[in-house]
Amino acid sequence: MMLLSQTSRRPQTLVFQLRANSTRLSSTVRHSSTKPLPEPYEQEGFTRLSRFWIPTGGITATKSEDAHAKLIRAGYLRQSHAGIFHMLPLGHRVQEKLEMLIDKYMHQIGASKVSLSSISSQALWQQTNRLEGYGPELFRLTDRKDIPLLLAPTHEEEITTLVSKTVKSYKSLPLRLYQIGRKYRDEIRPRQGVLRSREFLMKDLYTFDYSIQSALSTYEEVRAAYSRLFDELKLPYLVAEASSGDIGGDLSHEYHLPTPIGEDNVISCNSCDYVANEELATAGPIPLDDTTPGPDTGDVPTANVWRGISKDRLTLVNVWYPASFSDDSVNTYAIKSILPELDASLNNPIQYWPSSSEPKPHVHLVNIVDYRLGSPFSNALKTNANLEVLLPSGTNVGLTTITTDFVVSSKDDEPLNLLRIQDGDNCPRCSSGKLKVQKAVELGHTFHLGTRYSDPLEAHVQVPSNLIEDNTESKSTKKMTTVSMQMGCHGIGVSRIIGAVADHLADEKGLNWPRAIAPFDVIVIPGKNLEGDGEGVSHELANSLDTKLDVLLDDRPESFPWKMRDADLVGYPIIVILGRGWDSHDKICEVQCRRLSSVEHVPVRSLVTHVYNLLGQL
Amino acid sequence: MMLLSQTSRRPQTLVFQLRANSTRLSSTVRHSSTKPLPEPYEQEGFTRLSRFWIPTGGITATKSEDAHAKLIRAGYLRQSHAGIFHMLPLGHRVQEKLEMLIDKYMHQIGASKVSLSSISSQALWQQTNRLEGYGPELFRLTDRKDIPLLLAPTHEEEITTLVSKTVKSYKSLPLRLYQIGRKYRDEIRPRQGVLRSREFLMKDLYTFDYSIQSALSTYEEVRAAYSRLFDELKLPYLVAEASSGDIGGDLSHEYHLPTPIGEDNVISCNSCDYVANEELATAGPIPLDDTTPGPDTGDVPTANVWRGISKDRLTLVNVWYPASFSDDSVNTYAIKSILPELDASLNNPIQYWPSSSEPKPHVHLVNIVDYRLGSPFSNALKTNANLEVLLPSGTNVGLTTITTDFVVSSKDDEPLNLLRIQDGDNCPRCSSGKLKVQKAVELGHTFHLGTRYSDPLEAHVQVPSNLIEDNTESKSTKKMTTVSMQMGCHGIGVSRIIGAVADHLADEKGLNWPRAIAPFDVIVIPGKNLEGDGEGVSHELANSLDTKLDVLLDDRPESFPWKMRDADLVGYPIIVILGRGWDSHDKICEVQCRRLSSVEHVPVRSLVTHVYNLLGQL
Repeated sequence: MMLLSQTSRRPQTLVFQLRANSTRLSSTVRHSSTKPLPEPYEQEGFTRLSRFWIPTGGITATKSEDAHAKLIRAGYLRQSHAGIFHMLPLGHRVQEKLEMLIDKYMHQIGASKVSLSSISSQALWQQTNRLEGYGPELFRLTDRKDIPLLLAPTHEEEITTLVSKTVKSYKSLPLRLYQIGRKYRDEIRPRQGVLRSREFLMKDLYTFDYSIQSALSTYEEVRAAYSRLFDELKLPYLVAEASSGDIGGDLSHEYHLPTPIGEDNVISCNSCDYVANEELATAGPIPLDDTTPGPDTGDVPTANVWRGISKDRLTLVNVWYPASFSDDSVNTYAIKSILPELDASLNNPIQYWPSSSEPKPHVHLVNIVDYRLGSPFSNALKTNANLEVLLPSGTNVGLTTITTDFVVSSKDDEPLNLLRIQDGDNCPRCSSGKLKVQKAVELGHTFHLGTRYSDPLEAHVQVPSNLIEDNTESKSTKKMTTVSMQMGCHGIGVSRIIGAVADHLADEKGLNWPRAIAPFDVIVIPGKNLEGDGEGVSHELANSLDTKLDVLLDDRPESFPWKMRDADLVGYPIIVILGRGWDSHDKICEVQCRRLSSVEHVPVRSLVTHVYNLLGQL
Repeated sequence: MMLLSQTSRRPQTLVFQLRANSTRLSSTVRHSSTKPLPEPYEQEGFTRLSRFWIPTGGITATKSEDAHAKLIRAGYLRQSHAGIFHMLPLGHRVQEKLEMLIDKYMHQIGASKVSLSSISSQALWQQTNRLEGYGPELFRLTDRKDIPLLLAPTHEEEITTLVSKTVKSYKSLPLRLYQIGRKYRDEIRPRQGVLRSREFLMKDLYTFDYSIQSALSTYEEVRAAYSRLFDELKLPYLVAEASSGDIGGDLSHEYHLPTPIGEDNVISCNSCDYVANEELATAGPIPLDDTTPGPDTGDVPTANVWRGISKDRLTLVNVWYPASFSDDSVNTYAIKSILPELDASLNNPIQYWPSSSEPKPHVHLVNIVDYRLGSPFSNALKTNANLEVLLPSGTNVGLTTITTDFVVSSKDDEPLNLLRIQDGDNCPRCSSGKLKVQKAVELGHTFHLGTRYSDPLEAHVQVPSNLIEDNTESKSTKKMTTVSMQMGCHGIGVSRIIGAVADHLADEKGLNWPRAIAPFDVIVIPGKNLEGDGEGVSHELANSLDTKLDVLLDDRPESFPWKMRDADLVGYPIIVILGRGWDSHDKICEVQCRRLSSVEHVPVRSLVTHVYNLLGQL
C-alpha cells in the first residue's frame, strides 16, 4: 500500500448548472437565463407505433391458445413471477382506459379519489378479527424493527381507521372515497393470468353514512353508477341482486360477464328472464310428476353417497343421490341450508368423527335424501337403517352412542334438491323453461357493510338524536347521539376485467376490445409508399373531433400482411387501411371492424364521421 | 342440535337481472332492453368542494409547523404507519398532475409506459449481487410456498429480465420504458413525511441501446427532457453534472431543489455561477496567502484529530485539523481521495486496529494534515512523532510493527483541504467569490448504467459487427456480434417532489404550488348570497379556454373568513373572490395570488384572460 503516491487522486468534482425560467419568484439561489425550449415535440396528436413498444413476434400461436396466451403473444403483458404480471404498454393503456371509465362514474356520485398505502399492519387487522380468517392468502412480512405488516388485499381496516380519525360529525357525511390500486392475495392456485393473480389492480369504493336510511340511498346511487359504467362496456353483463331482509332493500349486487373460463356458474332460463348464480341458488320447484311416487315396482334406485361433517365434528352427514350423478354435483349450499354447521372443506370427513377407541361423546348421523331417489329409496333406507349400510364397511364406531336421523323434505314439506343445477333442469320461475349453466367471471360487486368495521374500529359520529330516531319524538330535540357509521364497500376488478373481456371477445384471429377500454380507438395501416398519407390521415382522425380519438399509425418497417395480422391479434376496434383505393379520385380507405364483421370502402372526406359512427357501436 | 327443525331453512336465492345495451354483439345470454341513461351527471366542468373531500379542521396550527405538518393539516395526506402514507384527494391530485407532467416529457422522447410488479424475487436479485448490498432496507417476504420474495425498491433486475426475454435484435433498439409506481425501502429513519418514506412513488425510466454511442445520444435526449420537465415547475432547481471519463460524455446528472429540510448540501458562489454538491466536491484552490508560512513565531496551532481505518483494518488514519472546527466538518470524500480504502462508517475505529495482544501483522499509521494548520504544525508533528502523541493515551499496540506516514500535500504539491466547505470559503472557480452552503433535496437523477445489469442478466442483442466496431473494417461485413445492451436508468421522486416543493414554497399562511402540479388551478369563493354567481363564474373559468382550467368552487356551508384561511392553507395558485365589487356595474372580482403577492380587482368580462395570464407566471 503506497500511501503517499495516492495523495494526488482527487475525487470527481461535480459542477452544477442552474436552471430556472422564472425570475419573479424569490429564491436564495440565483437564476441563469432560461434556454429557449426546443422546437415542439410531437404535437401530432396521434401515436406512432415505431415509438410505442409492442413486443409481438417470437411467440408462436397454438391451436388451443386461450385469451391469456393471446394477451401475452399480442404484447399486453408478461408474467414476472408465478401469478404476478408486468403490464406492457398495451396492457397499461387498457388499464388506464379502465381507470378513466371508473373515474368518470365515481365522479358522478361525488366520490373522491385517494391512494391508500399497500402496506398495512397485522395489529390493525387483528382489531377486526380478519388476520386469522384470511389465513395463508395474506402476504405477511415484518420490517427491520420486527413490526408485523401485511400487503393489503382490501382496505376496509385502513380506510375506516383513516375516516374514524378525521370525521367526527354527521355533517361530514355522506362520504365516498375510492381508489384504484394494487391489491395482494397469495392465491393457492393463481390461474388464467390476470383473471386470478397474486398482485392485481382493483377499484375499491368505501361509503360512510350516519344512518341506515342514508346508507340505503348511497347504495342505490352506487348501484346505478355501476350499471351505467358496465353499460358503457357494451357487453352482456349480468347483475345478481341479493335481498338482505334484516335492514331492508337490496344490499348486495354482483356484476358478472359470461365467459367459458369463468369460475362462477351462472344459470339462465331459455324461456324467461331468470338468471341466477348457481353456487348460491338451490333450485326451482320440482315438477310434480317427478315427485309423485310411481307404481311401487319394488325397484329401489341405485344411490351414491356424499359425506360431510359438522364443524364440531360430532355430526356426520350422508347425502344420498342418484348414482347417475357424480360427487361434484352435490350442492353444498343446499346441504348447508339444512345443516348450517356443515364443514364442507374436508376430504374423507369420517376420519374426523370420534372413533370407538376414543372416549365416546353422543354423536349424530344425519341422512339427507335427494328427491330424485324417490320414496321407495327413502323407505328402504329407513327400513334397513343400520350402521353397516350407512357407514363405509370397516368403520369402527360404537353402536350405542349414535343417533341416526333422516331428512327427506323441507320443513314446508318440499322435496329436497341437493344437486347443483344441471343443463336442462326446470326453471324455478316460469312453467315451461329449461335452465342452462354458463361459466362467468365476477367483475364487480356492491355491498352494504353496515357497522362490521366501524364498530370494532370505533368509527363514530355525533348525530342529533332526532335524525336517527323515530319521528314520534320531538324534532326540536338538540340531544346528540354517538353512532357507528354505516359503511358500504364496492369493488371492481380492474385486472380481472382485462382478462375476462379478452376472453369474452377473442376470436381465432386475436383479441377484441370494447371502445371504452381499447388501447387505441383506431389503427391506420398505410400501404407501400403511402407512409406520408398515413400520417395525414392519422392526424386528421385524431384531431378533427371535439372528442379526441386515440389513433395509432403503424409506421414500422414491416410488411403489409404482417401488420394486418398483428393488428388483428392486438384487436384494435377499427383498422383503417390505405391501399389500392387511395389512388382513386376520392381517395378511398378500407375500414375494417372485425367485431361488427364489417369491411367498408370510405372516401377520405367521410372517414372521420364513418369511424366515429362505428366507434359508437363498439 | 335439532336437525329436522332445520330442514326448512333455505339458502338465500340470488336473482340476476341482465343488462346490456348492444344488440349487435353475439352472445349466448339474451339481452333485456336497455334502460335510458339518467339525465347528464355533472357536466359542469368544475369541481364543487362540497363533493371533494378535504379534511381540514381538527388540527391546530403550531408556530414551528413545517411543510409536512402543513400537508397534513391542509388535508393532502395522512400517515398510516411509521413512514407510510395515505394520499388524500388533494395529495392524490398533486400526484396525478405530476404523473401527467412526466408522461408529457416521456412521450416526447418516445418512452413507452409500463407497470411492473412490485413483488420481485430474491433469486433474481442474487443474480446481480444486490440482495446483500441492500441489506435491511429491502422489505423481504416469503409466499405460501416459502419462495423468498421482496418488495422492489427499484426495477433494474425486473426490466432487464423482461427486455432480455423479449428483445433479441438491435433493430428493436433504442428502447425506452418507464413507469410511475410504488417503491419500497425500509428506511432506518423515515423522516419529513413523503420526503423520505418507506412506501413511495417514483418515476423510473430505463433505456436500452446496442452501442455506447447510441446510449450517449439516448442519454442526451433524456437529459434534455428532464430539463424541460423541471423547467415547467418554474422553480430554481440545480443540475449537477458529473463527467464520467471512461466512456466520454456527461453520464450522470442530479436535479436538486434548494430547501432547508434537504439532506444534501449544495454549495454556490456569491459571485460566479459555480454550484456544487458538497458531499462530492472537496474544495476550490486555497488562496496563496493562506498557505504561505507566516513568520515563524514558534506558535503551533492547536489541532483536533479525526480517526478512520482502512477496510482491511490494517491502516489507521489520523486527520489533523484546526481545533476551531468540529469532527462533523471533516470531509470524508477528501480523505478517500487520498486513501481510497478508507472505511468512514465506524465509530471509534481504533478498536478495530490490531492490538498488541494479537498476532501482529505489519500495520500503518497515516497522518494527514489540513492546510489550515500550516507548516509549523506539520513540522512539529513530524518532529515529535511518537505513538504517545499520535494515538490516544493508553492505546495498547506494539511499537516495532508500525509504519508511520505523513501526508501534507497532494501529488501536485497542492495544499490539502480536508474540511467540508464552510460558508464564506473561497470559490474554486472565480477569484473574488465566497461560497455559501445550502440544503437541497434531490428530485431526480439521470444515470448511464452501461452493462451493469445486462451482463449478469444476459440481456444480449445481435448487432452487425460493422455497427459497433471501428470504421476501419469493411462496412459490407454481414457478420453479427452478440453484445450486452447499454442501459440507462433515470429516476424522478414523485412523492419526494411533493414534500420538497411544499417546503420550498410554503409561507406562514400555508402551502403554495407551481401551476403544473397544483391540485387545482383556481378556487372561486363566493361571498354571502353570491353562491349562484359563483357557479356561473366557475363554469366560465373552466370552459372558456381551449386549455381546460381546473376550477374548484367552495360551496361549503362555512363562513367567508374560514374559507379564505382554508384556501391560503391549501395553497391554490389563484383565489377568485366574489365580494363587495360584484354588485357594481362591471361585476368586479377580487383575484388574489399569494405567490406573486398580488391582489387585483378585475371585471368579470376580463376574468378568464386575467387568470390565464397569471397562471402563465406560476
